[in-house]
Amino acid sequence: MKKRSSCPAACALDLAGDKWTLLVVRDLLRGRNTYGALADSPEGIPTNILADRLRRMEKSGLIEAKPYQRRPVRYAYSLTEKGRGLLEVLRAVSLWGHRYIPGTNAMPEFLKNDKGLSNPA
Amino acid sequence: MKKRSSCPAACALDLAGDKWTLLVVRDLLRGRNTYGALADSPEGIPTNILADRLRRMEKSGLIEAKPYQRRPVRYAYSLTEKGRGLLEVLRAVSLWGHRYIPGTNAMPEFLKNDKGLSNPA
Repeated sequence: MKKRSSCPAACALDLAGDKWTLLVVRDLLRGRNTYGALADSPEGIPTNILADRLRRMEKSGLIEAKPYQRRPVRYAYSLTEKGRGLLEVLRAVSLWGHRYIPGTNAMPEFLKNDKGLSNPA
Repeated sequence: MKKRSSCPAACALDLAGDKWTLLVVRDLLRGRNTYGALADSPEGIPTNILADRLRRMEKSGLIEAKPYQRRPVRYAYSLTEKGRGLLEVLRAVSLWGHRYIPGTNAMPEFLKNDKGLSNPA
């Protein structure tokens, strides 16, 4: 992908700056690693968007897909180290959301406790 | 705006989860506070998108617009406390970008030094 500029934020937002990618990261961090489990998030991600985001995230090295079943083939998704690095972004986003948007929950425990840089499962 | 869920990250991403909003925050933090100065960013934000984002950001309480000239009217934009709180998100995004995307710059000084919670200019 052509870089918009040499700004690290601009380039990072090209990979993860949308309404859904970080929520997929959130769900992978809490152990939802199949298409069905990811589609089942409370935000109701449209399945065409989920499929698109998984494809993009794999292409940009945020996740890996491994088949866990043949006929029909099904994939299990896991975060790479690069994808797992987005934990810190997700934490900052959650803290901000809870602080400034009334009615949102506090940062969930699995975000607080996760070390972020251990090996992906 | 109807909330997608009570997840603080999901709600935050509804306000700031796109390719451009955090770059407008970045540019406001470094003192670019007019439409012309914001349009002049190296990423080349399309002017219709800039106008749309400024409108949304004002509506969701991230920025304030004050006229500094009449005939034709021109506005100066500044971050509210809520908008300025996104500094921490921008920092996390910049750190991640620099770490994982080859060829991007280190986090710029104005992001490192800014306290983030002082009063908006």
